[in-house]
Amino acid sequence: MALNVSDIGEKELINYILSKSSDIIPDDTAITKFSDTNLISTCDMLIASKHFPQEMSYFQMGFKAVTVNVSDLAAMGAEPLGFLLSIALPKDLDVQDFKEIIDGVFNACDYYEIPLIGGDTNEASEIIISGTALGLCDSPLMKNTSKEGDLICLTGDIGLAALGFNLGEDNVYTKKALEPLARLKEGIIIKNSGATSATDITDGVASELYEMKPDSLGFMIHEDKLKISDEFKDISSELGLNYLDLILHVGEDFELLFTIDKDNDLDIDYIVIGEVNDSDRIQITLSNGEVREIENRGYNHYVS
Amino acid sequence: MALNVSDIGEKELINYILSKSSDIIPDDTAITKFSDTNLISTCDMLIASKHFPQEMSYFQMGFKAVTVNVSDLAAMGAEPLGFLLSIALPKDLDVQDFKEIIDGVFNACDYYEIPLIGGDTNEASEIIISGTALGLCDSPLMKNTSKEGDLICLTGDIGLAALGFNLGEDNVYTKKALEPLARLKEGIIIKNSGATSATDITDGVASELYEMKPDSLGFMIHEDKLKISDEFKDISSELGLNYLDLILHVGEDFELLFTIDKDNDLDIDYIVIGEVNDSDRIQITLSNGEVREIENRGYNHYVS
Repeated sequence: MALNVSDIGEKELINYILSKSSDIIPDDTAITKFSDTNLISTCDMLIASKHFPQEMSYFQMGFKAVTVNVSDLAAMGAEPLGFLLSIALPKDLDVQDFKEIIDGVFNACDYYEIPLIGGDTNEASEIIISGTALGLCDSPLMKNTSKEGDLICLTGDIGLAALGFNLGEDNVYTKKALEPLARLKEGIIIKNSGATSATDITDGVASELYEMKPDSLGFMIHEDKLKISDEFKDISSELGLNYLDLILHVGEDFELLFTIDKDNDLDIDYIVIGEVNDSDRIQITLSNGEVREIENRGYNHYVS
Repeated sequence: MALNVSDIGEKELINYILSKSSDIIPDDTAITKFSDTNLISTCDMLIASKHFPQEMSYFQMGFKAVTVNVSDLAAMGAEPLGFLLSIALPKDLDVQDFKEIIDGVFNACDYYEIPLIGGDTNEASEIIISGTALGLCDSPLMKNTSKEGDLICLTGDIGLAALGFNLGEDNVYTKKALEPLARLKEGIIIKNSGATSATDITDGVASELYEMKPDSLGFMIHEDKLKISDEFKDISSELGLNYLDLILHVGEDFELLFTIDKDNDLDIDYIVIGEVNDSDRIQITLSNGEVREIENRGYNHYVS
């Protein structure tokens, strides 16, 4: 029987591409040596029916299309250089809505101080926004280069967007879901402070930890360090959702997950959630003291 | 009454974006000064229902997605640096078809000697391939910088793809429609030979001439120099199509249209089709001696 792409899943599709290439670095972005620095490049496509919840405004769609790409620059510690916008629109889209998308794009470019330098327009049956972010970085922060004893850290709370996607009203959770911000400046400071590895959280902290795990090393994170509020637990419970599932396996927070030596002088707000050890396993210590393996499960575009 | 994007057309959408930006150069690609050269970047999105004729194989789709982007590098005279691939697939696409698309992409990257350095996969209701091509160029060939007295030239025959889209069988026309090639090497040679301006023909030579026209200068091209074969005219006529319409107003040939001084030592195959004058008009001399204005009409994604 012939297999469909949904039968094998996104990771296997990417593995097929990687197996054919000697030029792709499996990290947050591409890295191309150039002069005495590196050109950092990354592209991400957002498709209305998959990535834009119904509550999202046209302005927010445009802003998010920049954020998802800039977040990859942030994960490398790169300085922004330029943004390219490829956009496809349905023929019957109101011109005013188009303008709001574009205003969102420009507003985000201003916010991240990344110039919009080019693009392409097209017609499609739904809104599709594909962005390319370009940056520069002398020593990019790779994903899987942490050292034993390093702290595992986050630039902010996670799980908020995951909860927000399940809520209708206007609150801190829906704001995080609809108007996420990339940690671009923080990424540069983290890199300059000697962090040993980093990535941005798009598919959930669990799957990102698996992406970051160096061979033979392991990660232990602690539920008590995740700063999960009682409100977060209560709302999750009311919705019939497991709060730890939202925190570990959903993502879309665009916070940076990074590792850094215990002795560091990193001067930004951040949370230490665990440490790198030699266990060769990825585990969480729950609040009740129980140690549990973290499943390698996150958002997969081809399984729904 | 509210206007839809199809009411105002692609050019007006692009004009809105350009009106908001001081960083977009209205040329074939973005140009970013870097070190002692320029980073050249461009993105183009292909959507199955719009850009891939039914006869096109999956391999050809992947190849074309690279070609359309590399063709913009060619139009600047840029050396290729890297290619990023963003691809969205329907869930029920056969894995073998996915592999053929990817093989087409890699085959094209090999052909143009541009490494595939990164990308993104997604799910959509139809196949969407968005590419980004990166290149380097010390002195990019701009669009609208021709000089009076320059020759107007083409790297090859045009109109073949336009005719091919109307034919079913396997022939030179359908081959050009289904397997177009970008003139990357020619672009670099043209630039190094001191050409004064260039662009690639995607929307038809007529609309490209309007894009290339410097203020106060004009273009005269000659039907007799377009090397239109009797076969081309006969097939067009049999199909009830105007052969000059196919040549002037359709495009998708990916040949380069460029201007160069009469005294030049350009050493590639090319055709001289006209000359730059001071008429401030864009005209064609027909085979019967009649001079006619060329309409500014080409492919518009939002008018069908």
